[in-house]
Amino acid sequence: MAQRPVVIVSNRGPVTFQVADSGDLVAKRGAGGLVSGIGPLVAGTDATWVAAAMSDGDRRASEQGVVEAEGFRVRSLAIDPDQYRMAYDVVCNATLWFLHHGLYDLARRPRFDTRFREAWQAYRDVNAAFAEVVADDAPDGAAVLVQDYHLALVGGILAQRRPDLRTVHFSHTPFANPDTWRVLPTDLGAELLEGMAGHHACGFHSRRWADAFAACCAEQLGRTPTTFVSALASDPDDIGAVAASPACATALDELDHLVGDRAFVVRVDRIELSKNILRGFAAYEDLLERYPQWRERVVFGAFVYPSREGLPEYLAYRQEVETVVRRINERWGTPGWEPIVLDPTDDFPRSVAALRRADVFLVNPIRDGLNLVASEGPLVNDRDALLLLSPEAGIWDSLGDVARAVHPYDVSGTADALADALAVGRAARADEGRALKARAGARRPADWLDEQLDAAG
Amino acid sequence: MAQRPVVIVSNRGPVTFQVADSGDLVAKRGAGGLVSGIGPLVAGTDATWVAAAMSDGDRRASEQGVVEAEGFRVRSLAIDPDQYRMAYDVVCNATLWFLHHGLYDLARRPRFDTRFREAWQAYRDVNAAFAEVVADDAPDGAAVLVQDYHLALVGGILAQRRPDLRTVHFSHTPFANPDTWRVLPTDLGAELLEGMAGHHACGFHSRRWADAFAACCAEQLGRTPTTFVSALASDPDDIGAVAASPACATALDELDHLVGDRAFVVRVDRIELSKNILRGFAAYEDLLERYPQWRERVVFGAFVYPSREGLPEYLAYRQEVETVVRRINERWGTPGWEPIVLDPTDDFPRSVAALRRADVFLVNPIRDGLNLVASEGPLVNDRDALLLLSPEAGIWDSLGDVARAVHPYDVSGTADALADALAVGRAARADEGRALKARAGARRPADWLDEQLDAAG
Repeated sequence: MAQRPVVIVSNRGPVTFQVADSGDLVAKRGAGGLVSGIGPLVAGTDATWVAAAMSDGDRRASEQGVVEAEGFRVRSLAIDPDQYRMAYDVVCNATLWFLHHGLYDLARRPRFDTRFREAWQAYRDVNAAFAEVVADDAPDGAAVLVQDYHLALVGGILAQRRPDLRTVHFSHTPFANPDTWRVLPTDLGAELLEGMAGHHACGFHSRRWADAFAACCAEQLGRTPTTFVSALASDPDDIGAVAASPACATALDELDHLVGDRAFVVRVDRIELSKNILRGFAAYEDLLERYPQWRERVVFGAFVYPSREGLPEYLAYRQEVETVVRRINERWGTPGWEPIVLDPTDDFPRSVAALRRADVFLVNPIRDGLNLVASEGPLVNDRDALLLLSPEAGIWDSLGDVARAVHPYDVSGTADALADALAVGRAARADEGRALKARAGARRPADWLDEQLDAAG
Repeated sequence: MAQRPVVIVSNRGPVTFQVADSGDLVAKRGAGGLVSGIGPLVAGTDATWVAAAMSDGDRRASEQGVVEAEGFRVRSLAIDPDQYRMAYDVVCNATLWFLHHGLYDLARRPRFDTRFREAWQAYRDVNAAFAEVVADDAPDGAAVLVQDYHLALVGGILAQRRPDLRTVHFSHTPFANPDTWRVLPTDLGAELLEGMAGHHACGFHSRRWADAFAACCAEQLGRTPTTFVSALASDPDDIGAVAASPACATALDELDHLVGDRAFVVRVDRIELSKNILRGFAAYEDLLERYPQWRERVVFGAFVYPSREGLPEYLAYRQEVETVVRRINERWGTPGWEPIVLDPTDDFPRSVAALRRADVFLVNPIRDGLNLVASEGPLVNDRDALLLLSPEAGIWDSLGDVARAVHPYDVSGTADALADALAVGRAARADEGRALKARAGARRPADWLDEQLDAAG
């Protein structure tokens, strides 16, 4: 069978446009985890990428249909800003993200009220707008690869309008179990599952998320759609290029000066409730408390940068993070030693420098669709660093047997795991560090795209 | 087979003792949902009931071995108060209850630290103390009926010490699904499941809770213990006697005066995070907002009394309840009308009077092991009241097809359900009310005890 034409559909696109003083559109690479993961795989191919217009330049570009820029064929889609905010903030970020990650304080949140029903209608409309563009433009028999929970209804609509297309929905998040899924009003939960089931196949980073989706469908729809499991992977060459950059070298010098001959525990995360940043600090404090030999001998570098600050939950969480760091540093710090270095700047070369310099990586999310930092760390690390990894991250499926498990809620157990890892000298950890590096680079990034195309059939 | 001797084991006993001025022990009936549900079934039988000593009198009684009082053969068990508090407050109420009901704000709570490990040791010790008394005293071949999550390890210990006994563990709560169960540190979660699996059978109020327990065991233990489903039932005669009491008649007169010819929505609950009291008020306010015809024409009687105020979560929740009631009454109330009547006194005849006078019952828990109020209401009601019931209550299994579903998180949907129910006149709802009453009384309370004995084999 000849290769099908490919259409990628996602909320954010690989390129964003700005209007130059001359009035011309200037393209630059887009940001965001999904785009940086998938972008390199798609650049230079014939694939069309449909995404929401974010900037004024994007909205201008949307009037021109498909635009070629930065190696991509981009179709920007202008959506009414109020409608987009309702769909994106209320339904996607404040509801579906919280559901899939189990982040609700259920005695109080969520509340599905008339305002939520309006936001749901906006979510439907945004999905319909995406589906309409694809229906109008997609080549005959194309494989349409719909990315993530923002666009769960696209395949269901396309199944009606363009039955020649082969659609795949890929979830970059975990998927709620049936008990949690029932938190959604029954009609809306069923509509969302039907929408996903309207694709030819639904993909997930971990078998657990695929099974949870299938269990939700079995319970609410009475059938189980086709699922597949395919983990995205970090590209060793891409991240290696950053690690070899002058910016990274400069940052590494700074870190060497800061850390000195102390041990270096590193985490790199968005400030995100699911990342379990607070309990990571609690475990570190428990280490200082119960393993006094590490006082003044270790630095915790927390490269955690703000995210989604339009949602009050994220602002509150950031404040808690800052407060606990201040308290721990005040309690334990000495004139020559700051126990935790909190770096809130989203500076990728600097984060990569930290991953190079680390002795121990702490990746302890309470729930995480995949978590690429857990593989990027070993890929670039210079010191055979050990990886403390939560089994609740999707990447546990591939790294579980070469990482050390940290249970995300077990603060004293995490402190013990930190002490155990720190106690292993650099020479003694060479085998474990090398095994991590080999495993982290075992999967090719292109595998993930190929497996989606396979799933499209 | 001859009937086995019976031993009941529970945290609270059917009788509590006080030391009179004369120095004698004076017995009185104990309080608590479990005791009031099971007590009448056991009184007057030869069963021995083992329970923790709560009062000084109980501790005195514990020195005398089995004491006959109020128709019960009671074996009080004195436990070190600090140890008991650690086990009861930290492990049972603040952890296992929260887990089984899904009440954690997981980004922040729980945190398993060294203090929790100490409390866990206290929980083990309390369970061992119970098991020891049973091992020492239980007649040969007795059926030992262990009640609830406070005592999950008893059967496992008895299986070693007294293999002649037949043990049953009965859970009065929901059971966590595997995703939630994994929140417990792995070793402790496995220990608890092993303890429960050490009984000959594990009983639950709903098939859903039994299946969740079996799924947790399959995942963590690699095997599924014997389970059974058996719902406790309200005794129509017992609650009928309260409904016919002078105290209830007096309370009913007061309520008649208060409500007048308005419609009366009633809830009766402990102030408990799982009961979803806040969203019930939010739905009621949405009713007043979107169905203006009910302003001044309805009263919401919230007979909700404080509970577990030693835990900060419960104090905070009570304050939220009081704040929202005040706000709603200030916003919507008129000189002759208070929209919500909040009654925090734990006065059973008065609550029963409210159940008699109700037009609509609101029972909307986010998760509930059974919920006997949902059947007690219809059993005593004088007006063919309609029942709005959350499918997340275990009693949904038996009342689901005669009640009206309210989704616990769907505030606007609950408001619509209230409006629909209130719109049905008393004559028009006679069939539905009668069907509810018949179903609520269909199961005999003794069935539950018989089914536990059957499960003991």
